[in-house]
Amino acid sequence: MTCIFCQIVARELPAEILFEDSELVVFKDINPEAPVHLLIVPKRHFDSLNSLDELTAQIGARMFLAAKKMAESLGIESGYKVLINCGREGGQVIRHLHMHLLGGWGRKPVRR
Amino acid sequence: MTCIFCQIVARELPAEILFEDSELVVFKDINPEAPVHLLIVPKRHFDSLNSLDELTAQIGARMFLAAKKMAESLGIESGYKVLINCGREGGQVIRHLHMHLLGGWGRKPVRR
Repeated sequence: MTCIFCQIVARELPAEILFEDSELVVFKDINPEAPVHLLIVPKRHFDSLNSLDELTAQIGARMFLAAKKMAESLGIESGYKVLINCGREGGQVIRHLHMHLLGGWGRKPVRR
Repeated sequence: MTCIFCQIVARELPAEILFEDSELVVFKDINPEAPVHLLIVPKRHFDSLNSLDELTAQIGARMFLAAKKMAESLGIESGYKVLINCGREGGQVIRHLHMHLLGGWGRKPVRR
């Protein structure tokens, strides 16, 4: 298994995991580009957004709900961005579908 | 009706619509920030991502599939970004949920 996000899901690599359910994990980006910068990651491996189809796209709905709930729990629901980069030219670094949650510009960085 | 995206859906305001189905419309952003810059907009009005709940989040899956299909049809599937801004502090300008599809940096702008 060489996918580092699959390894994080399997607890074979460390990450600051803030939330987990049966379908997703949410952890801090190790190179944050905003005061709050989390990654919302399906446990199932999909290479990218291009890998989703009619049967599997439901994970997108779960990712949106997780983003909303994380924003609320961190008190940044008044302003945040969710971003998915797809493909190398699109800025995707890790080939495992993930959503960036960015926010918290209006206040100090969140510390756990 | 004062929501301009609802007005576009109702054809009361013009837009360069590239795709439409029962749930979504896709049209060009009038202030493009990339060679390809489309907006993927649910026909049903939701103020923002914060408005989605367990019952309505399915629209997120439809938006992802529409983004993937538009990227493929425009030949930019090797690299694109999808972005939702939520709340004024998050950069949301129009209070009607919408996803930005950005791409095409590797080639000339798309003309219809």
